[in-house]
Amino acid sequence: MKTNPGRYFEDFHVGQVIEHPTPRTITVGDTALYLALTGSRFPLNSAEPFAHALGLPETPVDDWLLFHIVFGKTVPDVSLNAVANLGYAAGRFLAPAYVGDTIAARSEVIGLRQNSAGDTGTVYVRSIGLNQLGEPLLDYVRWVMVRKRDKASPAPEPVVPSLPDALPVDALTVPDGLLPDGYDCDAVGSPWRWGDYAVGERIDHVDGMTIEEAEHQLAARLYQNNARVHFNQFEQGQGRFGRRLVYGGHVISLTRALSGNGLGNAFKIAGLNAGRHVAPCFAGDTVYAWSEVIAAEPLPGRTDLGALRLRTYGLKNQPAAGFPGRTQAGGYDPAVILELDYWALMPR
Amino acid sequence: MKTNPGRYFEDFHVGQVIEHPTPRTITVGDTALYLALTGSRFPLNSAEPFAHALGLPETPVDDWLLFHIVFGKTVPDVSLNAVANLGYAAGRFLAPAYVGDTIAARSEVIGLRQNSAGDTGTVYVRSIGLNQLGEPLLDYVRWVMVRKRDKASPAPEPVVPSLPDALPVDALTVPDGLLPDGYDCDAVGSPWRWGDYAVGERIDHVDGMTIEEAEHQLAARLYQNNARVHFNQFEQGQGRFGRRLVYGGHVISLTRALSGNGLGNAFKIAGLNAGRHVAPCFAGDTVYAWSEVIAAEPLPGRTDLGALRLRTYGLKNQPAAGFPGRTQAGGYDPAVILELDYWALMPR
Amino acid sequence: MKTNPGRYFEDFHVGQVIEHPTPRTITVGDTALYLALTGSRFPLNSAEPFAHALGLPETPVDDWLLFHIVFGKTVPDVSLNAVANLGYAAGRFLAPAYVGDTIAARSEVIGLRQNSAGDTGTVYVRSIGLNQLGEPLLDYVRWVMVRKRDKASPAPEPVVPSLPDALPVDALTVPDGLLPDGYDCDAVGSPWRWGDYAVGERIDHVDGMTIEEAEHQLAARLYQNNARVHFNQFEQGQGRFGRRLVYGGHVISLTRALSGNGLGNAFKIAGLNAGRHVAPCFAGDTVYAWSEVIAAEPLPGRTDLGALRLRTYGLKNQPAAGFPGRTQAGGYDPAVILELDYWALMPR
Repeated sequence: MKTNPGRYFEDFHVGQVIEHPTPRTITVGDTALYLALTGSRFPLNSAEPFAHALGLPETPVDDWLLFHIVFGKTVPDVSLNAVANLGYAAGRFLAPAYVGDTIAARSEVIGLRQNSAGDTGTVYVRSIGLNQLGEPLLDYVRWVMVRKRDKASPAPEPVVPSLPDALPVDALTVPDGLLPDGYDCDAVGSPWRWGDYAVGERIDHVDGMTIEEAEHQLAARLYQNNARVHFNQFEQGQGRFGRRLVYGGHVISLTRALSGNGLGNAFKIAGLNAGRHVAPCFAGDTVYAWSEVIAAEPLPGRTDLGALRLRTYGLKNQPAAGFPGRTQAGGYDPAVILELDYWALMPR
Repeated sequence: MKTNPGRYFEDFHVGQVIEHPTPRTITVGDTALYLALTGSRFPLNSAEPFAHALGLPETPVDDWLLFHIVFGKTVPDVSLNAVANLGYAAGRFLAPAYVGDTIAARSEVIGLRQNSAGDTGTVYVRSIGLNQLGEPLLDYVRWVMVRKRDKASPAPEPVVPSLPDALPVDALTVPDGLLPDGYDCDAVGSPWRWGDYAVGERIDHVDGMTIEEAEHQLAARLYQNNARVHFNQFEQGQGRFGRRLVYGGHVISLTRALSGNGLGNAFKIAGLNAGRHVAPCFAGDTVYAWSEVIAAEPLPGRTDLGALRLRTYGLKNQPAAGFPGRTQAGGYDPAVILELDYWALMPR
Repeated sequence: MKTNPGRYFEDFHVGQVIEHPTPRTITVGDTALYLALTGSRFPLNSAEPFAHALGLPETPVDDWLLFHIVFGKTVPDVSLNAVANLGYAAGRFLAPAYVGDTIAARSEVIGLRQNSAGDTGTVYVRSIGLNQLGEPLLDYVRWVMVRKRDKASPAPEPVVPSLPDALPVDALTVPDGLLPDGYDCDAVGSPWRWGDYAVGERIDHVDGMTIEEAEHQLAARLYQNNARVHFNQFEQGQGRFGRRLVYGGHVISLTRALSGNGLGNAFKIAGLNAGRHVAPCFAGDTVYAWSEVIAAEPLPGRTDLGALRLRTYGLKNQPAAGFPGRTQAGGYDPAVILELDYWALMPR
């Protein structure tokens, strides 16, 4: 068979390194589409003089666009037979991608555990995105539940990686040459700097964005993510939801764009501490978002930049005014579709 | 509160100058998307040799794309709490934008008048779009009806700017270096030059274009226009129309693209005399257009170029064959959604 | 009348040469949109280092994107009054297009035959796409059924061009400088080279892609294809299908993108032997594809490249597992919407 059947749980082993195919050169076509798909308004990613004023050579590619391109490459090798994308952790944005960079991706299997029912297992991979010089731009851990080819095949020795709840602030990378002295809050339209945010503060990002089928399909295809659940209504129509699933990364991008209203100067994602797609999202859903400040840390050795640890919740079909999130019973409010814990850089 | 609540009527005063945030570098990604969203076929904006033949250094950005990018910047500061976008006047296209230009925008409040019911008021602004050198590319007046924060707050002294019915032809700007000697009608597919159009002539642009939700959302997001009425079905579903509203500028762009069939050599918008979004437009509507030649003026000091003053009507769900426009009673035919009075340049 | 009414059957004569309007400069905006619309994952068209490794100066534009841009230019002159697009033959991809190239198109009428009912006729044209240097990049024959303006007008002398069933392999062009020594199958994610495919082999491309209205409209507008059947629901709603028709070329592109799963190293389309849009496709349809290897020929004088003659079937709303295609009665399985016979180049 010459088509890619995708790996089953039995096809993974701890220590396995997978070089993902389809290197991809990022262009301004990609960045314009990303903006049109998300409505992002962060000037660092859409105004060259703003980037220059921060000491960067060019407009950096939006951090989540880079993430999605890397993620998309991992799909055919890691999650084509996935039942669920369970979580992210320990993600580091190591260096900006620029237009013209060609992105490649590699993953290492760092954990495996068969599930008790015996027909699926959890696969942990650390994926890394690299530019054409082999420089790492991004790495992160994700874990997915993958089908077994044969329920009878023996379970591997369980290996569950030890993952930090959050990256320590000194694990975060500031882009080379970045000097926030030239940071212009007026160009962003928000006066609030790092010191203006308090731990525990909650921000309702107010706006809502309704997703269309064409939009999430365009997004996932732009990232060359070929997970069939996003594209094939004929098949999905006969499945559990009867619908195509919106690529969870599109929800991440929408919440990031929405967060510009309230967190406009959180100009750079520096770390992905933890992430979970709590519930599926479908075309027609309206995404809202709110964020809580979990920590506010100065960056070691710098007086010009601080880091905010943020937890952003993506909601569907419910405004964020009441801050629905985790429930006391340990679950989630039914409106929650995304919980994302990350570090963002802000000027002080 | 760290989110932008938008200005209410009380927050404006005559003479107030607002520097809008989110500068934006235009790329070929934007121009390709604009073309895909509108179907525009004017070679000046899509074929570099055509632009060179006219003496321009590069392909200029479509005039309305520039307009929408400037307009989008004004939304968070001017019309986030607008009830209605009432009109445009005195718009001048002062210089072309080119790919690589970074566009910023500034508005000055030039008029205010509280409405008789006391809960809203009309705000008049002159907005200007500038490139990275601070050179003005575009300015125009628009007026919007904005909610008052508090009905009880006192009415300001009414100031209503005096606006011309139309720009005089000598107020129009021809781009530096533009030499229409190299204008190639064959490349456009229309033989009709300035002298072939008669005042009073009506042109049915024949074709119709159906709008999808994904399309108008992509368009408005591309312009970083964050007016929530275009994007939030959850909220709009509970409102007056039960639907998301198509950004009026998308209708302007569709009528401009449709007008290429009949006005193919009207290669450059030079002035926006007056404009009105007569009725709302929704996804699923099919837009048609027709134009009337209001005036045909030679350009002062030039024998190679003329200007046509055109009034283009955008219609929904009705072909333009019967030229539905204003009614004798002073209103509009129910099919009319847009009335746009503008100057276009044409080779003689 | 200043609008283009389109040519009727009477307006064509054998030997007539039509220079099509609207030259078009290809940008990375176009290539990014093409990728987002189709999900294509061939690295040659999306990764610059991959193209460099093959000896090409830059990333070539996807062959079908070039085809659609050329095709789009022919629509206003050839098929605006077409009842049906009947077929393609003798298509040659003569040289790659690169970003920055400006594409023009010209057609010659090479055949005419009035249909027996007397109200339509078949028009055969050879269309050629050229770059800004006048170099031919692509030519192909297509034939369309066009309405007569007046049923009573006399039938022309029938001229039916003699068209080959398939191009001979020595009519195929390898791009100048192309050296597949640097071809990296790992970057594609498929180990299968030319010698791994057997004549008669059938490949189920497995995946399915559901088409949205916004998507096919964006695609056709990107190609400046203004055939009204794709865009005007108001008019189409009253017609035979009650629906907008998806541009057949969009189906070609989807099947090409899907074929990357199974034919990943068929990196270059070299010839279009024959093509037929067997049945209409509408938004909501899910496209599947399968291919049969019709011939596998070495390329004259080269040991590094081979050509596969492939017949790809596009299906709607039916997986390709059973390989539905032509029926024994000489028709097609009802799921078939496209039959495309073409040559692709592969590394040996």
